[in-house]
Amino acid sequence: MSQSAPSAVPAGGVPGVSMGIGEQVLDWAEQLAGHSDQANALTVAYLTRAHQTAAAEIAGWMIEAGMQVDIDAVGNVVGRYVSSDPAAKVLITGSHFDTVRNGGKYDGRLGILLPIAIVRRLHEHGIRLPFHLEVIAFAEEEGLRFRSSFLGSSALVGIFDPIWLDAADEDGVTMRDAMRAAGLPGTDTSILALQRDPARIAGYFEVHIEQGPVLLERGLPLGVVTSIAGSVRMTAVVAGQASHAGTTPMTMRRDALAAAAEMTLAIESRCAQAPTLVGTVGMLNVPNGAGNVVPGRCEFSIDIRAADDRTRDVAVADVMRVCEAIARRRNVTVTFAHTMTVPCAPCSPALMDLLAKSLARAGVDEFRLPSGAGHDAMMMARITRACMLFIRCGNGGISHNPLETVAAADIDLAGLVFLDFLRNFHG
Amino acid sequence: MSQSAPSAVPAGGVPGVSMGIGEQVLDWAEQLAGHSDQANALTVAYLTRAHQTAAAEIAGWMIEAGMQVDIDAVGNVVGRYVSSDPAAKVLITGSHFDTVRNGGKYDGRLGILLPIAIVRRLHEHGIRLPFHLEVIAFAEEEGLRFRSSFLGSSALVGIFDPIWLDAADEDGVTMRDAMRAAGLPGTDTSILALQRDPARIAGYFEVHIEQGPVLLERGLPLGVVTSIAGSVRMTAVVAGQASHAGTTPMTMRRDALAAAAEMTLAIESRCAQAPTLVGTVGMLNVPNGAGNVVPGRCEFSIDIRAADDRTRDVAVADVMRVCEAIARRRNVTVTFAHTMTVPCAPCSPALMDLLAKSLARAGVDEFRLPSGAGHDAMMMARITRACMLFIRCGNGGISHNPLETVAAADIDLAGLVFLDFLRNFHG
Repeated sequence: MSQSAPSAVPAGGVPGVSMGIGEQVLDWAEQLAGHSDQANALTVAYLTRAHQTAAAEIAGWMIEAGMQVDIDAVGNVVGRYVSSDPAAKVLITGSHFDTVRNGGKYDGRLGILLPIAIVRRLHEHGIRLPFHLEVIAFAEEEGLRFRSSFLGSSALVGIFDPIWLDAADEDGVTMRDAMRAAGLPGTDTSILALQRDPARIAGYFEVHIEQGPVLLERGLPLGVVTSIAGSVRMTAVVAGQASHAGTTPMTMRRDALAAAAEMTLAIESRCAQAPTLVGTVGMLNVPNGAGNVVPGRCEFSIDIRAADDRTRDVAVADVMRVCEAIARRRNVTVTFAHTMTVPCAPCSPALMDLLAKSLARAGVDEFRLPSGAGHDAMMMARITRACMLFIRCGNGGISHNPLETVAAADIDLAGLVFLDFLRNFHG
Repeated sequence: MSQSAPSAVPAGGVPGVSMGIGEQVLDWAEQLAGHSDQANALTVAYLTRAHQTAAAEIAGWMIEAGMQVDIDAVGNVVGRYVSSDPAAKVLITGSHFDTVRNGGKYDGRLGILLPIAIVRRLHEHGIRLPFHLEVIAFAEEEGLRFRSSFLGSSALVGIFDPIWLDAADEDGVTMRDAMRAAGLPGTDTSILALQRDPARIAGYFEVHIEQGPVLLERGLPLGVVTSIAGSVRMTAVVAGQASHAGTTPMTMRRDALAAAAEMTLAIESRCAQAPTLVGTVGMLNVPNGAGNVVPGRCEFSIDIRAADDRTRDVAVADVMRVCEAIARRRNVTVTFAHTMTVPCAPCSPALMDLLAKSLARAGVDEFRLPSGAGHDAMMMARITRACMLFIRCGNGGISHNPLETVAAADIDLAGLVFLDFLRNFHG
């Protein structure tokens, strides 16, 4: 479809199509939160009973919305709103429906429920799209049960290694057995067959709650994501000399904790020096520490992210150099172990511009921001151009927490933008 | 005895009296270390079987050395080398024989074994003293089993509260029952009867391994202790806001750990501003911390000591004020709880001078230093004038550790000084 060709979605939107989307999505999110592995918290781990009943409920909503629905070999719920052009490419949208332990109701799920609500209105109005639209409820993104994350989207992009099927959860159940118990084949070939042909995909668009305070602080309901930060995660071990807190003069100490404290502040200050850069020491402990013993050892974690890999990698190198200098000056040692490095996924400039125009037409100030959190879009960007729309996160921007909130009015606006994006997207 | 009256100990020392003291003391320490609650570590907790057999072995050495021996109601092994003057006052010396978990062989024990060795030589040479000399092996100082420390010396100074008898160890055994199982009365009255009449005591002199690196760094075998630092111990809790490490910009964080790190460095730097002051953050943890979560809470311990209470208390007040300012600036809160405050115990200037003169006569450079660690002398100073002699700690000054070492030659010198002190002490 060329720029000038008329879209099947009438210009100026469809009266009523996006009305009430917010309330609808919030209702569904509430219902979906009824499926949980835990009684008083929302926890949905990969392929548990709650996970399967949640998948069934989503599939039901997709069918009601006029989609063809399939649960694939990795457990993704794939709804397809078939195009008027059978030969057309597919625009994929979606997000994950698994959760962290004691998570929020909107993380991931907004990006499934909002598109279903939109498709339902299109279907009710008999509106077809010039491209196939798939809404994928990804089965796994958080890594809660098997510690490997992005299981749903990694299968589609061809990086799900069948060796993962032998990973066991904390009860010793392998992923393969969990799949079979859930009625999935649990075979290598069934997983490998999920890999999509990039030539058939027109793009990927994910709606997600921001999970941070940036839009909230700026008073903006929506934001266009510029890139999804890849993180470098490390552990650091500082070794000094444990000694008596009363008898070791300050000048003769080799205090591992004081050194780690200085390193923590150095990481904080270095990572404040670029706009999209963040650096976090999230865990720190003094093994066998006692109140009256100068710490001889301290262990801590480092997580550094940025909107582009170069900014991040330069920061990582600086942080390591500065920590080593601190260690030398304090006569202790520091050793680093890299535990994870994920490259950044820049969003498609063309799709970002398209989204920005949709925002403008919806009367929302254009604002672009990187995503510090990982998302399925990060995986999908490996095989197609991808973009993301963030919806403002209420309650101070808190997420991965039952206190996570989103406003119906913001979802309404996101619905308008989504619809406008569909109208202007060139499959 | 007046300054000019001749001592019963011949001027110039007794040939052979202090010869070989070091090897003797090291041998005994080795033998004593054979009694332990643990197979491959030296751990002697209050009134365990190992504690009782250790007490019996010490009592045996005391008897062989010519002393009258009694095990008192709190388990102290009290050896008395009776004076030629029955009406004379008593000079008390001694230290503790219990240990920390996996402790060293010399902590406490040097201060028992060295005096026994000296008395043995005096006895062998038929030398009597113009004052009674008691060598007390204190049953408990470390607080390992019942968490209350200085049990042995606190009974003698009258601050052992009989309510402590109802304290239970981690197996639920009360101190009273532990006493009875060890053949002690375990009654309130038997404990209260241990309180000494200050009018009968001429002074207290404790020999102890330094447990720090100061003498070692200065190349000195011995040092005169000026005061025993009292400590203020506190716990601090910093409360911020847990948030996503990827999505929370550095400028919007309320990071409890980063705040605690800054506080840790502030404590370190403030406590480096006075010669005898030391400040330690020995424990620090981030409850439920995760590598990808900005810490919402951090807890840490503070231990501040100095040779005088005023120096310490001003530092404590400064530290609290600075930490509160850090908390305000970082938009977190900090709350402190005082867990222990022990006043300093200054040593007797007259006895310090006497010791210093003995050092000079032994050819050792005079050096005075405060004790940052607590000792039984701290308790005894409540009822009599007290002094302490530190012996150089080998191996970098390490103590409370199996790596603790002391040189036989240094013990020999301490024996010379001890004997000279006895010769010049005025009961």
